[in-house]
Amino acid sequence: MRILILGGDGYLGWPTAMHFSVRGHQVHCVDNYLRRRAVREQGANSLVPIPDSLPARAAAWREVTGYEIGVTEGDICDWDVVERAFRHSEPEVIVHYGEMPSAPYSMKSREHAVFTQYNNVVGTMNVLWAIRDIAPDAHLVKLGTLGEYGTPGIDIEEGFIEIFHEGRSDVLPFPKMPGSLYHASKVHDSTNIQLACRIWGVRATDLHQGVVYGIETDEARMDDRFLTRFDYDDIFGTALNRFCLQAVIGHPLTVYGQGGQTRGLINIVDTVQCVELATLNPADPGEYRVFNQFTERFSLLDLADLVRRAGHEYGLTVRVDHLENPRVEAEEHYYNPKHTKLLDLGLKPHTLSETLIESMFGVIERFQDRILPEVIMPTTTWAPRTRENSPR
Amino acid sequence: MRILILGGDGYLGWPTAMHFSVRGHQVHCVDNYLRRRAVREQGANSLVPIPDSLPARAAAWREVTGYEIGVTEGDICDWDVVERAFRHSEPEVIVHYGEMPSAPYSMKSREHAVFTQYNNVVGTMNVLWAIRDIAPDAHLVKLGTLGEYGTPGIDIEEGFIEIFHEGRSDVLPFPKMPGSLYHASKVHDSTNIQLACRIWGVRATDLHQGVVYGIETDEARMDDRFLTRFDYDDIFGTALNRFCLQAVIGHPLTVYGQGGQTRGLINIVDTVQCVELATLNPADPGEYRVFNQFTERFSLLDLADLVRRAGHEYGLTVRVDHLENPRVEAEEHYYNPKHTKLLDLGLKPHTLSETLIESMFGVIERFQDRILPEVIMPTTTWAPRTRENSPR
Repeated sequence: MRILILGGDGYLGWPTAMHFSVRGHQVHCVDNYLRRRAVREQGANSLVPIPDSLPARAAAWREVTGYEIGVTEGDICDWDVVERAFRHSEPEVIVHYGEMPSAPYSMKSREHAVFTQYNNVVGTMNVLWAIRDIAPDAHLVKLGTLGEYGTPGIDIEEGFIEIFHEGRSDVLPFPKMPGSLYHASKVHDSTNIQLACRIWGVRATDLHQGVVYGIETDEARMDDRFLTRFDYDDIFGTALNRFCLQAVIGHPLTVYGQGGQTRGLINIVDTVQCVELATLNPADPGEYRVFNQFTERFSLLDLADLVRRAGHEYGLTVRVDHLENPRVEAEEHYYNPKHTKLLDLGLKPHTLSETLIESMFGVIERFQDRILPEVIMPTTTWAPRTRENSPR
Repeated sequence: MRILILGGDGYLGWPTAMHFSVRGHQVHCVDNYLRRRAVREQGANSLVPIPDSLPARAAAWREVTGYEIGVTEGDICDWDVVERAFRHSEPEVIVHYGEMPSAPYSMKSREHAVFTQYNNVVGTMNVLWAIRDIAPDAHLVKLGTLGEYGTPGIDIEEGFIEIFHEGRSDVLPFPKMPGSLYHASKVHDSTNIQLACRIWGVRATDLHQGVVYGIETDEARMDDRFLTRFDYDDIFGTALNRFCLQAVIGHPLTVYGQGGQTRGLINIVDTVQCVELATLNPADPGEYRVFNQFTERFSLLDLADLVRRAGHEYGLTVRVDHLENPRVEAEEHYYNPKHTKLLDLGLKPHTLSETLIESMFGVIERFQDRILPEVIMPTTTWAPRTRENSPR
């Protein structure tokens, strides 16, 4: 298949590109290096060194595997870039990772908030119009987030819920309660995509993904130049990845608040597997489909405990610190999102284990001398520091 | 009270400004004349001539009434404008009409769609940050739209619904199914505002308003220079206003499709009354409150019929034409939005009657020679013309 990957230089985009390429698909990546820039701007880096550019990555890939990955360097908020990539690659599938992916980033300042929502909403809007006018039969596989739902007191269905109300019923979009302006930007995207399906007949799968952890996919093991980036700072690092790195360097694990915050998690290997399953089993024309893309549920304390135990096995002394929570969020709550649709399509989950965490320790140790410990502690708070707030 | 009105030059903004000013409130208006410009750009005009600028309106107002209305000419997407207006006016209430208000406008082209969402989302985002950082105790009264809900098969509650699901229950945001990219932009705003209430303690009332009709408010009758604009073109004219004008000039009433599309309607006099009620009864700190702001429900055919009968009384021959529907929407559907919260606060509805329509005929006749009949017929379609689509 002809697959266009937006955000093909990112933590998930690049492994996805390799995964499809090695299976004989025609892959074209678009990226404007927003993530590289944003990480650099706050003085952080990727633990794992990566080649200087997408063309450099594609060249290494071609050299080792013989497969071509096409590249467009540019911003999908720029219509010319989108139009060019669509006309050149004639996509049957668009895998859309091309967004600003960080909640704390979006809460840093007004400028960051505006940028996050502008970037994500306008980029996705351009993609929808490109599908409408250039590739109307293409299937959009969009990365959303489980965080769009927030933490409601009822089970979270996959995108839609049948509501019985005063003698009538209807199947309606599951209510969304995003917890940051980044998460809100994903809700906006979901609203726009669903509308495009209804009025333009676009076919779309909106993957409401949990927190991704892990470093290596099969393809990455072929050559160090194929490794994906790995962020561990307070803005772009995600909980488990950050905890593993903290364990390796003897930094206390930074649990925000009580640590009862529960989230869905997924191994990076399964992210790629899910995107492939969505791609091979496309939505119908006009269908807007939501899959909750995660394999297991953990609280922050569960994760810290797992890392502590794995660290002990591995010979590390791991301390857990409870920081004042920089976010405004419930620290104890009901949480039960359904996630059967991808399993029904054949997903074989790679579950989290001490063994897996120990293998992450190994990779982190290899690049340990690159770590900048000063970027680990949280610097961005959700609430202005002077005001009282009560989380829901 | 000190009241900041964003979009104070518009169809509703200006009558609201006068209404508060004459009651002794300190009113400051912001507008960048987006509406004037957008109407001009498509070769249309306001039926009713209005003074050249907000300062000219404020000067006429001062001359006749002795009351001051402050003015900032500028774009709320520009932070400097927002910051200046907030610091200067020190608002206790922000009435926010300052958005691109047209569904067909947002569907005209990719550029129009991007502009609509950028303009509405970024403008409102700036307002939220201004409240957070400059006026944390101010109450935001935001104009949303009943169209955020779409046409679900269950009764529409005011913003929130208690959902019972698999043995548990929670009160959650009412699911939204907007029917255009404009309506979607209002859903985005609602999501962002609700989040700001939760994390920053902002107090907000989100008025999910129906289709507004009418021309005159009490203040407008004092002086012709106080009249508000009245749009009748296919982009900015709303159904009933357009039908009345069509009746006067002998143009067939343009009913889109079967005409079973049912909407909530409200008289402009009641819009102003509702905004006043919301202002005088503010939301609590951290409270996000939704009022469904309309007084009656009509289908397009009901409205056409009313105008036909009133026209007959008035001596006009009125023909009703069914056009191919330029929108993608259900033409027969269940529709029952609740609207008790504003009644509970004391709203006294001005209901639609043949008498009221005849008085609208009178005003329209006064300005009849300004009408450009060529801007009446719809020119924008929701779906690309070459593809099949099935409305939900």
